[in-house]
Amino acid sequence: MYGLIGKFTSTDGDRDRLSAILLKGLRDMPGCLSYIVANDPADANALWITEVWDNADSHKNSLTLPSVQAAIKEGRPLIAGMEQIAQTAPIGGHGLTTA
Amino acid sequence: MYGLIGKFTSTDGDRDRLSAILLKGLRDMPGCLSYIVANDPADANALWITEVWDNADSHKNSLTLPSVQAAIKEGRPLIAGMEQIAQTAPIGGHGLTTA
Repeated sequence: MYGLIGKFTSTDGDRDRLSAILLKGLRDMPGCLSYIVANDPADANALWITEVWDNADSHKNSLTLPSVQAAIKEGRPLIAGMEQIAQTAPIGGHGLTTA
Repeated sequence: MYGLIGKFTSTDGDRDRLSAILLKGLRDMPGCLSYIVANDPADANALWITEVWDNADSHKNSLTLPSVQAAIKEGRPLIAGMEQIAQTAPIGGHGLTTA
């Protein structure tokens, strides 16, 4: 499995708009086992994104899906920063589903 | 919802033993919507733990479950460090289940 832990910072005051776009865009992504969007209670513009994919190629391929392309296009003006905290190799756990 | 992103460091060479204990201990935790254990490909002793709970109380209460108590007891000697990267407020996504 392939995982990502990332932190997005929205343009000021736009976090809710950005998270709504992200959540809308992540439907039916082949190979996606988990994709969770979370607010940071300590920073009003910060979002945490934690992802698990069956493999790195599925993640890469997801970026070409029309739904994801649309979300990227719509969300990009609202993103002030993106920080990759970790790339991971998930082993297992609870909540790993299939798209 | 209540979320945690944490990084565990095992005593040298003990990561696989530690992750096996964690994975064994996390069965049937009420209010747990996601709990994923991942290796860090860049650090042979590091594990990433990402958790989502329905609320903070469910997380707190899980620490008193016999299965979790047993995992803590068994795993503690193998933990060299624990770092909380973020406490989060998950909004939604894919892979949020129930215990």
